[in-house]
Amino acid sequence: MQSFEIDKTDLLRIKTALEGDDAELQKVLKEYHPSEIAMLFEKLPQEAKEKIINILPTDIASEVISEMDEEHRPGELLINLHPDKRSEIVEELDYDDATDIISQLDEHEQKEILEDLDQEDADSIRALMNYDEDTAGGLMNPQVICVKMGMDKKQALDEIIRQSEEMEEFYTVYVIDDAHILKGILSLKDVIKARINAKINELVNNDFVYVKAELDQEEVAKLFSQYNLTTIPVVDDNMKLLGRITVDDIIDVMEQESTEDMLKISGVSEDEELSGNWKEAVKSRLPWLIINLGTAYLAASIIRHFDSTVAQLPILAAYMTIIAGMGGNAATQALAVTVRRISLTDLTDSQAYNAVLKEFLVGLLNGAANGIVVFFIALFYDGNPMLGLVLFLAMTGNLIVAGLTGSSIPLVLKRIGIDPAVASSIIITTFTDCAGFLLPLWFATHLLLHTHVK
Amino acid sequence: MQSFEIDKTDLLRIKTALEGDDAELQKVLKEYHPSEIAMLFEKLPQEAKEKIINILPTDIASEVISEMDEEHRPGELLINLHPDKRSEIVEELDYDDATDIISQLDEHEQKEILEDLDQEDADSIRALMNYDEDTAGGLMNPQVICVKMGMDKKQALDEIIRQSEEMEEFYTVYVIDDAHILKGILSLKDVIKARINAKINELVNNDFVYVKAELDQEEVAKLFSQYNLTTIPVVDDNMKLLGRITVDDIIDVMEQESTEDMLKISGVSEDEELSGNWKEAVKSRLPWLIINLGTAYLAASIIRHFDSTVAQLPILAAYMTIIAGMGGNAATQALAVTVRRISLTDLTDSQAYNAVLKEFLVGLLNGAANGIVVFFIALFYDGNPMLGLVLFLAMTGNLIVAGLTGSSIPLVLKRIGIDPAVASSIIITTFTDCAGFLLPLWFATHLLLHTHVK
Repeated sequence: MQSFEIDKTDLLRIKTALEGDDAELQKVLKEYHPSEIAMLFEKLPQEAKEKIINILPTDIASEVISEMDEEHRPGELLINLHPDKRSEIVEELDYDDATDIISQLDEHEQKEILEDLDQEDADSIRALMNYDEDTAGGLMNPQVICVKMGMDKKQALDEIIRQSEEMEEFYTVYVIDDAHILKGILSLKDVIKARINAKINELVNNDFVYVKAELDQEEVAKLFSQYNLTTIPVVDDNMKLLGRITVDDIIDVMEQESTEDMLKISGVSEDEELSGNWKEAVKSRLPWLIINLGTAYLAASIIRHFDSTVAQLPILAAYMTIIAGMGGNAATQALAVTVRRISLTDLTDSQAYNAVLKEFLVGLLNGAANGIVVFFIALFYDGNPMLGLVLFLAMTGNLIVAGLTGSSIPLVLKRIGIDPAVASSIIITTFTDCAGFLLPLWFATHLLLHTHVK
Repeated sequence: MQSFEIDKTDLLRIKTALEGDDAELQKVLKEYHPSEIAMLFEKLPQEAKEKIINILPTDIASEVISEMDEEHRPGELLINLHPDKRSEIVEELDYDDATDIISQLDEHEQKEILEDLDQEDADSIRALMNYDEDTAGGLMNPQVICVKMGMDKKQALDEIIRQSEEMEEFYTVYVIDDAHILKGILSLKDVIKARINAKINELVNNDFVYVKAELDQEEVAKLFSQYNLTTIPVVDDNMKLLGRITVDDIIDVMEQESTEDMLKISGVSEDEELSGNWKEAVKSRLPWLIINLGTAYLAASIIRHFDSTVAQLPILAAYMTIIAGMGGNAATQALAVTVRRISLTDLTDSQAYNAVLKEFLVGLLNGAANGIVVFFIALFYDGNPMLGLVLFLAMTGNLIVAGLTGSSIPLVLKRIGIDPAVASSIIITTFTDCAGFLLPLWFATHLLLHTHVK
């Protein structure tokens, strides 16, 4: 199998079926996985989506809705359905998915949906809505399979089968005491393989990884990756079991965090959706560009300061853009490596020190290598060895500035608790632009035109 | 719990324990999860790692080795162990992990390790070594739980328990026929919940997602994300079951692919390890910088072409760096959004067309917004409204160039089968640098200095 791509044939089939009778539409829809229908929805108008949801069996409809990307507004689809159909679908959803979808709506719509639900479902969803969506609490599903300490194998197995009626899939059984305090974990395999009169107390695994509900989702994702987890229990301050987070939600978090890193480092605000419209894109990017305009004036003011040097040697106007541009690119390289490294692991002091030292060395060597090329071009093309020397020194110097700022700024930001990806290339290139203009102009003024400058 | 960070206290404890007696060291090590010991290894010398591996129980030692990052060379650790200890550890490893680790070694070392193993283990590992490590075959573990069509509940359950002795964790039971052809999947829960005399034929789920062994790992990861999978079966061209891929391996793939995207787009070769040394970094980045040096000369040659314009209006030397720099940053924004979007989903023709159109519009609007600022600065600070107009037009024009190239180049590369992240900012900024110099100089020449130019 390949990953599913929406192609014109699929869309055409669905669109044709939408115009035909219900039986035909149902037949066509049966050939698609709920995830695929969710993807097809990205290309269909609102009425078509509603028609399809209404015709699908409730369990499939709810799976389709839970698979829709947040940015394609499953909440809006839900609110427009008939209240009975809507409640059926919401009750079929996992609580965490229901919460995410309902949270998209405005307060009065949320109330409308919640009022129609069973008291128990409504309460569970309301409780989940209190957690910040970027935390473990915001990711967790309160539906878990629990057995109690003191049960024997038979009791535990009966309990697991009874509770799993309502759950599609589970990987871990949680062991709690009477006060709902999490005592350990078990796999279904452990229970089945145990001898017939085994007690849970003997089977339970007490050495497990858990998270508090307030933990940031990025930290939760790191735990999944570090300990190769499929699921993690979420507890409160007293170790009371609140729910569990499964790895499929973590995959979404990881995609989201990687996207944010890549956008932020490129000077795009993290709020911009990848498939957002132009208004959103302008709103997200213009502030960074305006900041950059300010820093560009700062860099340009350096050039103005050396007006007489440029006037005497206009070729410098061309060369200094090369030095500045090369610095910007070298800084982007150092920045990308450092930001990505920080977001995957936490660096110790000595690792951070070594990272900066490495980038200094890389800047020195890459700077010297490019500097030699520039030197020879100045020597043979411009016939000016002193200009070559000026450019060699400026290139080496600016690539050192690039390495130092590209690595140290994100590391320092991380230490003081600011997201290191904010050290976007826009900020870092301010340094390399300034140094890229200052260094060649200063060296030129002092080494080439020394006698002409007062 | 927070994600584990190696701090000085942990390192000091381990180092002290390493100097003490074995019992003390064992006691200290017991307090750490195998993943944590693997992380501590990153900071310990080779002899310390060997001592710890030798003292740990074999199952823990093999878990530690399988948790070590590839770049910290678990293979080298393995090859230096006593052959008996080494074989015990390798036999405890999952075949896919053993294959990855042994593949790191040179041919003669591989042979040395494989010769000491059981025939069966050695054969399985040799078979896996034939798959490209970036494909489904390279990720899969051939150890799966299988039951046969025609079995009843009791037979199936016995078979599952028997086979699961050797496996730490499993989520899915695969149903095969006598020729080992994959017929469907089952969860352990389905088997347990079935009535006592149920047949596998009635329980089996025939609608499942699978992959061929040759599929690229990036496509495999997309399937996990699209269908929210925890595990996927790997088959050959005849649907014969070869193994399974679990989600923990996919998390590693996703981290690796995101890192590659971010590095490539920033002009860092994908071979550079995040924590690699300076030699590796220079080797990975210098080629891009040299390419950029060439393109920078190309852009600078435009400036030389307008020598007389710059000489007449030296202030343009400063302003054109602002226009070019702003274009570079706007292009980086458009590029990051486009590359990330392509790597998460496949765009249809009309989506691709709309993406370019959106970036054109964003470029026009952000260009005009920044152009107005530059216009007023030229008007009030330089007292030159015509210069303001030149800069307004150049800024708007260059940000349109930025939007168009930043979005269309990666899309075109994707269509012709080249990795779109290769459209690194280094390549894209060549366009914005050229246009950033050409536009203000050309407009200035024709609008401001028209009469002076021949």
